Amino acid sequence: MRLSRYFLPVLKETPAEAQIVSHRYMLRAGMIKQAQAGIYSWLPLGYKVLKRIEQIVHEEQQRAGHIAMLMPTLQSADLWRESGRYEDYGQEMLRIKDRHDRDMLYGPTNEELITDIFRSYVKSYKELPLTLYHVQWKFRDEVRPRFGVMRGREFLMKDGYNFDLTKEDALHAYNRHLVSYLRTYERMGLQAIPMRADGGPIGGDYTHEFLVLAETGESEVFYDSEITDLSFGDRQIDYDSVEQCHAVLEEFTSRYARTDETHEEALFAQVPEERRRTARGIEVGQIFYFGTKYSEAMGAVVQDQSGAQVPVHMGSHGIGVSRLLGAIIEASHDDKGIIWPEGVTPFHCGIVNLKQGDAEADAACEALYASLEALGLEPLYDDRNERAGGKFATMDLIGLPWRITVGPRGLKNGVVEVTSRRTGESEEMPPEQAVAKIAKIYGKAL
Amino acid sequence: MRLSRYFLPVLKETPAEAQIVSHRYMLRAGMIKQAQAGIYSWLPLGYKVLKRIEQIVHEEQQRAGHIAMLMPTLQSADLWRESGRYEDYGQEMLRIKDRHDRDMLYGPTNEELITDIFRSYVKSYKELPLTLYHVQWKFRDEVRPRFGVMRGREFLMKDGYNFDLTKEDALHAYNRHLVSYLRTYERMGLQAIPMRADGGPIGGDYTHEFLVLAETGESEVFYDSEITDLSFGDRQIDYDSVEQCHAVLEEFTSRYARTDETHEEALFAQVPEERRRTARGIEVGQIFYFGTKYSEAMGAVVQDQSGAQVPVHMGSHGIGVSRLLGAIIEASHDDKGIIWPEGVTPFHCGIVNLKQGDAEADAACEALYASLEALGLEPLYDDRNERAGGKFATMDLIGLPWRITVGPRGLKNGVVEVTSRRTGESEEMPPEQAVAKIAKIYGKAL
Repeated sequence: MRLSRYFLPVLKETPAEAQIVSHRYMLRAGMIKQAQAGIYSWLPLGYKVLKRIEQIVHEEQQRAGHIAMLMPTLQSADLWRESGRYEDYGQEMLRIKDRHDRDMLYGPTNEELITDIFRSYVKSYKELPLTLYHVQWKFRDEVRPRFGVMRGREFLMKDGYNFDLTKEDALHAYNRHLVSYLRTYERMGLQAIPMRADGGPIGGDYTHEFLVLAETGESEVFYDSEITDLSFGDRQIDYDSVEQCHAVLEEFTSRYARTDETHEEALFAQVPEERRRTARGIEVGQIFYFGTKYSEAMGAVVQDQSGAQVPVHMGSHGIGVSRLLGAIIEASHDDKGIIWPEGVTPFHCGIVNLKQGDAEADAACEALYASLEALGLEPLYDDRNERAGGKFATMDLIGLPWRITVGPRGLKNGVVEVTSRRTGESEEMPPEQAVAKIAKIYGKAL
Repeated sequence: MRLSRYFLPVLKETPAEAQIVSHRYMLRAGMIKQAQAGIYSWLPLGYKVLKRIEQIVHEEQQRAGHIAMLMPTLQSADLWRESGRYEDYGQEMLRIKDRHDRDMLYGPTNEELITDIFRSYVKSYKELPLTLYHVQWKFRDEVRPRFGVMRGREFLMKDGYNFDLTKEDALHAYNRHLVSYLRTYERMGLQAIPMRADGGPIGGDYTHEFLVLAETGESEVFYDSEITDLSFGDRQIDYDSVEQCHAVLEEFTSRYARTDETHEEALFAQVPEERRRTARGIEVGQIFYFGTKYSEAMGAVVQDQSGAQVPVHMGSHGIGVSRLLGAIIEASHDDKGIIWPEGVTPFHCGIVNLKQGDAEADAACEALYASLEALGLEPLYDDRNERAGGKFATMDLIGLPWRITVGPRGLKNGVVEVTSRRTGESEEMPPEQAVAKIAKIYGKAL
C-alpha cells in the first residue's frame, strides 16, 4: 500500500478520553474511531490487525479439528427462556423488540443457539465428538464501557462449543482447546497464562482464563514465576491424542496461577517465596466444561451405544478477538508508539523515502515495493512529500516491526537502511539483501 | 475435509416453508438453519460459500483501489437525525434503546456513519479521491421476510462510499465501481446485467442495479438481447483511467436494460423486435452517485484548490453478499441439487470411496486427498460407511463441481473416475491424472 492512497488519519494530540496506552495509541494511530460509548469503527489500519488476529484464530481452531460456522448477531428471546437465562442475564443483555413486537436480543454469547442447532440435527453418539465455533460480533451493554476495545459493548469474539458423549470425552475437548489457545496466543506474540477461574453466569466446574500480564490489567493475578518460563514453541501435537493434550494441560496448569476471584492465600503460601509473584493481567480468553447444564435444560440428547437417550456433555470456549488488539499493545509498546509482533502486524514492513521526487530514491523505493509484493508480503510505502522526521514518527507510532529507509546518500553507496522497531537498531545493506532479510523474517522463500 | 468429521446435516425431505429452489436446496444441503423469521445460522457448508463470496468481493474492491475498514452493526440515532433519515426510514429500521435509554439502531446502511468518519479527519482536497468500504451485517425489519437468504432481515452486505472533490471525479468512482462489480460477479460464475434504476430512499440521479436473470427473480426486467452476449472476460483495466472505466460503462449500459421501476415502453419499442426480451431478475447489487446530499446535510466539506470550503461529492455502492448465495443457486442448479461455479464452490472436489474399508480403495482415496491438499486445494472426502447411491446423492445435492469416484474395480485397471457435476460426464483416468486435471481447472501448478 502507498500511504498517499491510504486512509491513515494519524492524530498529533493524545485524545483526552483515553486512559490507557492501548486506547491512546489506537486512536492516535488512526486504528479506531468511537461511534458511541463502547462501540467503535475500525479504520483501515485497525481493521487489518483485527483480520490478522481473526485469521490466526481460524487457522488454529481448524488445526484442532474444530468446524467453522456463523450464527447471527440477533437471537430469539424464546431460546433464552428455555435455558432460564433470559431473566437471569440482567441489564448487560441488550433486549430488542421487532416491528411485530417479538422479543429479541443481541447475542452476548451463544450456548442456547448452538444447542438448538445441535438438537435439531444430531441424534446419535456416532456423530460425536463435534466442536463447532464461530467468530461473530457480540453485544454486552456494560454500564461503563471504557479502555477502548478492551471493554467495549460491541466486540468480536470467537466462541466454540463442544458436544461429547461422556464427561471424559468432553474433558479431552477442554484440553484440546487449552492446547490450541496456547498456540494461538503465542503466534500473536503473547504469553497468555491459563489460570484457574470462576464459572460465572455460564457455569462450569472446570474453567481456565487466559491472562496476559500487563500493568493495566483489570485483574490482580498471583502465580508461581516458573510458569512464565514455559512456552509452547513449535511442538507438534496430535489433537486426537488424549494423552498428548492432557500432558500439555498438566504442564501449563499444575503450578499456582490464579486471579483474585479464585486466589487462595494458603495455597499460594506453599509456593517457594522467591517464586511468588503478584501482578496484573488482561483476560484474553476462557474455556469451560459445564457438563449437561444446557443439554438437559434444552433436550439436547443423543442415543448412546446401549440405545438410551442421554444428554450430551458440553463446554464453551472463547477468545476475545477485538480485545486482543488492546492486550497486544499493552504488552508491546514504547513511548513512541506500538510495536507489533510479526504475527499480527498490519503491514510487514514500512518503506520510507527520505527524498520523495528524487528520481533515484523513488526508483529504489518502487523496486523494493515490487520485490516485497512479489514475495506475497505487504509493505507500506510512505511516498508522501513530507519531512523525514514526520515519516519516522508515523512509522514508529503505527508500529510496523521493520522499516527500510531509502535516501540519496545511502544509494550512492549502494545501500538502504533496515531498522528494527523493537530494538531501534539499524543496519545498512544493499536493497536486494534488505528484501532477503525481510523475506526470511516472515518465512517467505525468495 | 473428511465427511466423517464434518458437520453436514443433509435433509432427506424438502422443508415445507421453502418456496423457491435456492431456499429449498440451502436447507436440504445443510447450509443454513432458520433461527427466526429472516434470520439464519450459517452451517459449515453455507459459511464456506459465504466466505468465498466475501473473499472475491474483497479482492475485487482492493484491486480497484478501494480501502477496507469495518463499521459497527449498531449506530447512534443522532447521526440519522442529522441527515433527516431517522424519521423517514420507517418500520424497516430496527430501533433499539440501550440501558441508559439512548436511541440506537441496527444499521440498514451506512451513509451517515461513514460521512461522520470522513468529516472528522479529512480537511483538504489533497486527501481525495477516497473510497472506503466494508462488509458487515445489516438489518432491515422486513414485514414478510421470505425466500431464505434472498430476502432476510439480518443480511451481509458490502457497502462502499466514495468521496470526491467534483462531480466529474465522483462519476469516475461510479464507473470504477461498475467495472469492479462486473469482474466480481463474473468470478462468481454469474452474469449480472447493469440496469438503470430508481434512487429510492438513498437518493441519486445516477444509479444502476445489477440483475441476475432467474425465473424466481422479484423484478420484471426488459432488455435488449445483445446485452447478454457481453462479457467482461479477463481484460486488464487500469482503474485510474477515466477513459477505460467510462468505455466499460458505455459498453455495458448503452443498450436498453431496465427493471419494471424504470421501464419506458416507448424507448423499449425502439429496440428491434427480435432482440426485445422480458424476463425476471434478482438484484445482487446497486451503485449510486448522489452528489452532495449527505455532505451538505452533515457538513462534510474540504478545502479546494482556491481555499474555499466545499461539500464533497459522494456515492454509495452495495453488493448483497449473503443474498448472492441464493442468486447463484437460482441461476445454477438442476433437479438433483446445486451446481456451484468453480469460483465459489465450498470444496474444490469431492472424493467418493465406493467401498470404505477396502484397503486398496481407502489407500487410493487417502493418496488423492493428500495430493489435492498439497496443491492448496480443499477436497471433501466422503469416507463414511454408506452405500454408493447415498454418497452420490449427497455430492449431487451439495453441488461440488467435480467428483472423483474410487472403487476396487477401477483400481484393478489403475483408474478412478472424474465426473463433472454440470454435464454429468465421467472420464476414467489414473489417479495422478485426475489430480492433474483438478489442479488445472483451479489454476494450481503441479
